[in-house]
Amino acid sequence: MAATLTPRPAAGDRVKPAVPWWRWAVVLVPGLLLYFFPVAGLSRAQAHVFGIFVAAIVALVAQPVKMGVSVVLAMTLLAVTGALPPAKVLSGFSNVVVWLIFTAFLFSKAVTATGLGSRIGYLFIERFGRTPLRLGYSIAAADLVLAPFIPSDTARGGGVICPITRSVAEAFGAQGEASSGRMGAFLILTAFHTTYTASAMFLTSMAANPLIAEMALKVGHAELSWLGWLSGSILPGVLALIVLPWLLLRLMPPGLTDTAPARAHASEQLRRMGALSRRERWLALILGGVMLGWVTSPWHGINNTFVALMGLCAILLAGVVSWEDLLGEGKAWDALIWFAPLVMMSEVLNENGTIRVLSQRLFGALIGWPWPAALFVLVAAYCYVHYGFASMTAQVTALYPGFLAAALAAGVPPVAAALPLAYFSSLDAAMTHYGTGSAPVYFGAGYVRQGEWWRVGFLISLVNLFIWLGIGSLWWKLIGIW
Amino acid sequence: MAATLTPRPAAGDRVKPAVPWWRWAVVLVPGLLLYFFPVAGLSRAQAHVFGIFVAAIVALVAQPVKMGVSVVLAMTLLAVTGALPPAKVLSGFSNVVVWLIFTAFLFSKAVTATGLGSRIGYLFIERFGRTPLRLGYSIAAADLVLAPFIPSDTARGGGVICPITRSVAEAFGAQGEASSGRMGAFLILTAFHTTYTASAMFLTSMAANPLIAEMALKVGHAELSWLGWLSGSILPGVLALIVLPWLLLRLMPPGLTDTAPARAHASEQLRRMGALSRRERWLALILGGVMLGWVTSPWHGINNTFVALMGLCAILLAGVVSWEDLLGEGKAWDALIWFAPLVMMSEVLNENGTIRVLSQRLFGALIGWPWPAALFVLVAAYCYVHYGFASMTAQVTALYPGFLAAALAAGVPPVAAALPLAYFSSLDAAMTHYGTGSAPVYFGAGYVRQGEWWRVGFLISLVNLFIWLGIGSLWWKLIGIW
Repeated sequence: MAATLTPRPAAGDRVKPAVPWWRWAVVLVPGLLLYFFPVAGLSRAQAHVFGIFVAAIVALVAQPVKMGVSVVLAMTLLAVTGALPPAKVLSGFSNVVVWLIFTAFLFSKAVTATGLGSRIGYLFIERFGRTPLRLGYSIAAADLVLAPFIPSDTARGGGVICPITRSVAEAFGAQGEASSGRMGAFLILTAFHTTYTASAMFLTSMAANPLIAEMALKVGHAELSWLGWLSGSILPGVLALIVLPWLLLRLMPPGLTDTAPARAHASEQLRRMGALSRRERWLALILGGVMLGWVTSPWHGINNTFVALMGLCAILLAGVVSWEDLLGEGKAWDALIWFAPLVMMSEVLNENGTIRVLSQRLFGALIGWPWPAALFVLVAAYCYVHYGFASMTAQVTALYPGFLAAALAAGVPPVAAALPLAYFSSLDAAMTHYGTGSAPVYFGAGYVRQGEWWRVGFLISLVNLFIWLGIGSLWWKLIGIW
Repeated sequence: MAATLTPRPAAGDRVKPAVPWWRWAVVLVPGLLLYFFPVAGLSRAQAHVFGIFVAAIVALVAQPVKMGVSVVLAMTLLAVTGALPPAKVLSGFSNVVVWLIFTAFLFSKAVTATGLGSRIGYLFIERFGRTPLRLGYSIAAADLVLAPFIPSDTARGGGVICPITRSVAEAFGAQGEASSGRMGAFLILTAFHTTYTASAMFLTSMAANPLIAEMALKVGHAELSWLGWLSGSILPGVLALIVLPWLLLRLMPPGLTDTAPARAHASEQLRRMGALSRRERWLALILGGVMLGWVTSPWHGINNTFVALMGLCAILLAGVVSWEDLLGEGKAWDALIWFAPLVMMSEVLNENGTIRVLSQRLFGALIGWPWPAALFVLVAAYCYVHYGFASMTAQVTALYPGFLAAALAAGVPPVAAALPLAYFSSLDAAMTHYGTGSAPVYFGAGYVRQGEWWRVGFLISLVNLFIWLGIGSLWWKLIGIW
C-alpha cells in the first residue's frame, strides 16, 4: 500500500484537548449581538459584515481554533448568510498587497533555508561586537539588514535573530551562570525591542505594512511608496536603534565587559558554515535587485508585488530554493489564507461606510482640538490598546482605518496622520510577551521575568512615543510632510 | 541554533541535472513568435497575452521547470510587460471555481489521510468480487463513489485506486507469476479506464470540470449545474462502466476464475484497519452533506464553492484533519498556484475576443455542415489532440473555449455542444501513459507493455466515442438537451 494511504494515527483519533467554552463565548457573543442588533447609525447589511468581522478579530486573539480556521469560517459565513456576494468574499485573494506579503514570506524561507540570515547575524557580531553595547548594536544592525525582505517578525525575530542571540548569550556561560544570565537578559531585550523598530522602518518589514499603505491611500488619499515610508522612518528609526540598546544597557547592566566569548562563538559558527555558497550569493544578489526595484518604483512604475514576484522567479530559476521547498512552507500558505479574508473584510467595512460611522461615534469628541494634541491622543491610544491584541495584523485590520479616519476628521494632514499610526502598528508589539508571533519566542528564552519584561516594555513605549512622535514630528516637518 | 536555521545541505548546492536547452526552446520560440508577430486578426494587445499563454501551456507539457514555476513566470511577465494590469493578473486567485477545486483537493487529503478511501475500495472488493469481472466492477464502483469528492485523478486513481488494485493483483501471486501478471493487467487497465469515466461523470470529479462549466456559461451561455452535468452523464457513464470491464476481460483475459485470494486480501486489510473510526464517520457524514448541498443548489442558491467551504469548516471543526495537515498538503497549494493564473489567462483570451478570432480561422470550414457532423468532427479532434497533452487541465484551458465556440458557430445547440466536449476532457486522458497525472502511476505498475497500453487505449477511445456521442446523443435528446 502506498504511503499516502496509511491512516496517520497521530492526526485524528487522538484525544484533542477540549477548547474551553468561554473561548467560543467571547467570540460568538459580541459577534451575534453586533450582527442582530446594529450599532446606531449602521444599516442591517453593514451590521452583518461588522458582526462577522468582530467575531473573526476576537477569534484571532481568543483562538478557539487556529487563526486560519477562524478566517475561513468567517468568510464562509459572509457568503452563506448572503452578507456579501461570493466573488466579493474571495476578492482578498487577488489583492496585490496580499501577494506582496505572501511573496515576502517566501523570501524569508530562502533567507533562513540558505543560512544567509544567520551568516549576516554572526558576521556583524564577529566584526563589531567588541563591547556589550556594540554587541547589542551588531544584533540590531543584522535585524535592520534583514528587515526589508522578512516581513514576518516571527521568521526574522523568532527564527533568525532570537536563536543567534540565545546562542551568543550561552557562549558567556563559561564565565558563570549569573553573569551569563545578566548578559542574556540585556541581549535578548535588545534584540526584542530593536526587532520592532526594524519592523516599523520599511514598507516590507512587517506583514501588515503594505496593507497600511493601501488603507492610507483609500481612507486618507495619502500615498505611501516604499521610499516615502522609509523617508519618514529613517531618522526616528535610526535614533531609536541608537538609543534603545544604550538605554537597555543602563536598565539591565550585563556586568561583564569582555565580549570575547561571543565573538569566538560567532567565528566558530562562521567557520562551520564555510565559504559563501552559490545559493547565498545568488540570493543576496537577487534580494539586492528586488530592493532596488522597490526603491525605484516611482520611476519604472512596476507594482511592488510584481517586483517581488520577479525576484521570486529569479530565486526559483537560479535554484536558490526549489518549488517543493516553497510548497512545504506552511507559514506562507497560512499567511495567505488568513490575511486575504481579513483584508477583504477591512476593505468592505471601509467601502460601505462602517468605519466612518464608528470612528465618528468613538472619536467625535476630538473634533475641535488642535490637531497635534488630537494626533498624540490617538497614537497613544492606538499604541496602548495593543495590550489587548496578540497580533499586529489583527490590530491593523481592525483599528487602523478607524483611527486614521478620526485623525483626519480632527484636521491632521493625511500623511502626518498615516505615518505615526503606521509606525506604531509595529512599535506597539514590544510591550508584552504575547503582542505578536515572535514575542513568546524571545520571552521563552527565559532570561527575563514577566514583571521585568512588562516594566521595560512600558518604559520603552514611552521612549518610542518621545522619539517617533516628538522628534519624528520635527523631522516630518523638515521633509515637508506637514 | 534552531532547526529552521540549519542550511539544508540537500536543497541547493547539489548539482542539478541540467534542463535540456530544447525544453526552453520549444517554450520560448512559439511564445516569442506569437508575441511579436500577431496572428492575422489579432491586435498587438491580444497577441501579447496569447504569446505568453501559449508559452505557459507548452511549458506545462515540456516542463523546463515545474508547472507552478512556469505559471508564476507567465503571470509575472503579463504584469511586467504591461500586457495586463496587476489586479487583472491576480484575478484568478479570487475565482470561485479555483476555490472549489482547491477545497476539493483538501477533501482528497481527508479521504486519503483518514483511510476512508481505501476502506471503501476494500469493502467493495470483499463484498462483490466473486468473479474476475465482478472484481473489475468492484474497483470501478469504488472509484465512482469517491469521484465526486476527489477531483484530482492523481489523488483518486494514483493515490487510492491504483495502490489497492496493485495490492489485490499481488494477492494472486501465489497462483503463479504468469496468472498473477495476466490478472494484474486486466485489473490495472480496468481501474485505469474507469477512473476517467468517473472523472467525466461529475462536475466535481475532475479538477478542470468546474472550469469547463464556467467557460460553457461565458462562451455558450450554457448553464451546467452539478445536477445538470450528472443528468447528461448518468446514462452513458453507467453504460461505459458496465461495458469497459466486460470488454477488457475479453481483450486481456486473466486466465483465472477463482478470486478468493483477492477477497481474502481485502478482508485482511479491513481487519487491520479495525472498526470505522470517529474521523471516518464524521468525514462520511460531512461529505454526504456536501453532496446533498451540491445537488440541491438550484433550490437553496448557495454557490457550490461555499457549500464545499462549509464542508471544509465542518471537517476542521470536527477534527477529521487538522489545519496543519491541510497546510502541509503541498499538492493542493500547487494546484491553487498553477490553476488560478491559467483560469485568468483563459478568461482574458475569451473576454478580449482572441478565442473567437482563432476559432473562426481554424474551424471556419465547418460552417454550413449539418451540426451533428460538425459536432462529431470537433469532439473527435478534441479527443485525439490529447495525444499531445500531458494534462487534462492544460488542454481544457487551451482548447475548450475554442472548440466550444466552433461548435456554436456550426449551429450546435449550446448544451449539446458543451457537454460532450466536457466529458471528453476527461475521457481523452486514457489513451496514453502520460495523458494525466495518474496515468504514469497506473502504467508504472508494470503489468502492461506500452504497445498494448496504447492499442487498448485507442480501442477504448472508439468505444467511448460510440457510447458517449452515439448513445449519449439519443439520451440527451430524450432529456430535452437538444
